[in-house]
Amino acid sequence: SKSYNITLLPGDGIGPEVISVAKNALQLVASLEGFGITFEEMPMGGAALDVVGVPLPDETLNSAKQSDATLLGAIGGYKWDNNEKHLKPETGLLQLREGLQVFANLRPATVLPQLVDASTLKKEVAEGVDLMVVRELTGGIYFGKPRGFGTNENAQEIGFNTEVYAAYEIDRIARIAFETARKRRGKLCSVDKANVLEASMLWRKRVTAIASEYPDVELSHMYVDNAAMQLVRNPKQFDTIVTNNIFGDILSDEASMITGSIGMLPSASLGEKGPGLFEPIHGSAPDIAGQDKANPLATMLSAAMLLKYGLGEEKAAQRIEAAVLDTLNRGFRTGDIHSAGQNLVGCKEMGEEVLKSI
Amino acid sequence: SKSYNITLLPGDGIGPEVISVAKNALQLVASLEGFGITFEEMPMGGAALDVVGVPLPDETLNSAKQSDATLLGAIGGYKWDNNEKHLKPETGLLQLREGLQVFANLRPATVLPQLVDASTLKKEVAEGVDLMVVRELTGGIYFGKPRGFGTNENAQEIGFNTEVYAAYEIDRIARIAFETARKRRGKLCSVDKANVLEASMLWRKRVTAIASEYPDVELSHMYVDNAAMQLVRNPKQFDTIVTNNIFGDILSDEASMITGSIGMLPSASLGEKGPGLFEPIHGSAPDIAGQDKANPLATMLSAAMLLKYGLGEEKAAQRIEAAVLDTLNRGFRTGDIHSAGQNLVGCKEMGEEVLKSI
Ligand SMILES: CC(C)[C@H](C(=O)O)[C@@H](O)C(=O)O
Ligand SMILES: CC(C)[C@H](C(=O)O)[C@@H](O)C(=O)O
Repeated sequence: SKSYNITLLPGDGIGPEVISVAKNALQLVASLEGFGITFEEMPMGGAALDVVGVPLPDETLNSAKQSDATLLGAIGGYKWDNNEKHLKPETGLLQLREGLQVFANLRPATVLPQLVDASTLKKEVAEGVDLMVVRELTGGIYFGKPRGFGTNENAQEIGFNTEVYAAYEIDRIARIAFETARKRRGKLCSVDKANVLEASMLWRKRVTAIASEYPDVELSHMYVDNAAMQLVRNPKQFDTIVTNNIFGDILSDEASMITGSIGMLPSASLGEKGPGLFEPIHGSAPDIAGQDKANPLATMLSAAMLLKYGLGEEKAAQRIEAAVLDTLNRGFRTGDIHSAGQNLVGCKEMGEEVLKSI
Repeated sequence: SKSYNITLLPGDGIGPEVISVAKNALQLVASLEGFGITFEEMPMGGAALDVVGVPLPDETLNSAKQSDATLLGAIGGYKWDNNEKHLKPETGLLQLREGLQVFANLRPATVLPQLVDASTLKKEVAEGVDLMVVRELTGGIYFGKPRGFGTNENAQEIGFNTEVYAAYEIDRIARIAFETARKRRGKLCSVDKANVLEASMLWRKRVTAIASEYPDVELSHMYVDNAAMQLVRNPKQFDTIVTNNIFGDILSDEASMITGSIGMLPSASLGEKGPGLFEPIHGSAPDIAGQDKANPLATMLSAAMLLKYGLGEEKAAQRIEAAVLDTLNRGFRTGDIHSAGQNLVGCKEMGEEVLKSI
């Protein structure tokens, strides 16, 4: 019978706690749906730095490449914050994204009816928000060369980076975004700064060109400063947003905070072919690490995305998604989404309740 | 007796309407405080493109350079949106900033008690927000070279820009930010992406070095993605924010929308010496241009910043600020900030009411 290899990267902070819970959920739905999963757990981020001395050991990258999909917990922590760049946990994450060539980062931001009060936005603004940020993940200023330090003509120290996009990089992320919008409400908003940046002018030109392949999707363009405003003013106007690596970093975090439940939000990073990378969008939360306080639902929903986008196991994915909703309906809440009258539970207990719902 | 030269740049869309109202206010407070003002009105943006064929005519730049301060309305509109880069209204604005060397852009975002309901944020989150974004305005990716279009090694079309900062550029904006924080609540948050970008690593290093000159100011650092979240989660945590040109563009617009009253927010752009540039942060709003619907208060408050930061006429500035508050207290509102039970007025009438309050 069918069986998959999954690489697990618990990472740092609350990473190991949420991964352990998500692993149980994956195992359970696999047995219910009649397929097998073999897990390989590998070090990554600060955890790898402490043991192997690099944030992404070769063995870890190879495991991820050879697996059917990778589930990551979280990386980073105060301990490594002042490390040199090549010894930062974050550098390991960028190397992993580049190594797997996962150029398309899908970040849904949904306000669940059960959690609408968690948003700092007024109820009528927050309720019903359901948007998807499609962020380019392996190009732009994150990877552009030249980059580094030097001196200018006045012998002044300078630091510099290059924002650069090639047509094919824009075309492929645009296609993913149009496909995504087509499966949603058919509206795509491309965000750039084409009134100032040449890299954005090419972005807008290519996205507009690709639009002719998707006549059923309604395309609009928005400047990034306006998009940052519109997400606060009226987030419901958005269906799918496509944007570059750095703007996507900023806007997807803003969008996720608008939902008020960042501990709930998953993400998927996909390539043309080859295995994808799935991770909650929250960080490693070192302040609550090891205290059984973390919200494991974002990682569980990332596991659901892994099943759906990574393995094509749509039914198993739906089992997890439905169980997460059911657990919320039954009133269980971790601290980050807790409000009066509900059942405050820790990471492990939340995990067990989801297993019961499954 | 004392007299000043002010260059007025009405620009496009609602620009002429709001400038005409602000001009009256400047004239009135000047006569009350016993100084003179001579106005020179010059074309800029789309208005200049239509007449002279460039977005910033030499005469306009020279007038601004030779004046004591410049007040700008707004620029841009659909008509010029597809112009080539050197013929965009926005390019004129960038040339003006560069020409005046106004590297420090001060953008307050304040929630007035009278307008707390205008915010999409819950009342308890919005009320009392009072922050200042200090944005670097003449460097970074907006001006960095090389920039342009080309082909990569695979003959693919590319678009590229350079994010670059020299130590002196960071030092001078950091000093303005520390001075600003010192006059406010003594807290400065520097926003960067130092976990990924070399330009940000230098930024963080220099801001940290300059901090030793301001032991009374409490400095913190935050990544830009987190800052975009924290502005939504709890904007009251911020006093003064300092950041680069592109992050400042995004975050200051986000912060202004959090106040819910973008038609109320002024800005000042200042150089080392030489005249400053003052403008509302809202755009040219072509959809309501010429309909006497615009909110002139942001431009009036920009005129107040001009008096204070540009001319050192603190008392005249306070007269305008107090009159704006008084007019709001008397219940007058333009459409953008109107709610039930208040007196809906147009741009001109709002201007006249502020004059009465003065
Ligand atoms: C940790 C950091 C390098 C990363 C990024 O900027 O991409 C994170 O913020 C994210 O969004 O996944
Ligand atoms: C019009 C545009 C070039 C400008 C900018 O990006 O600086 C505007 O958004 C602003 O913030 O003043």
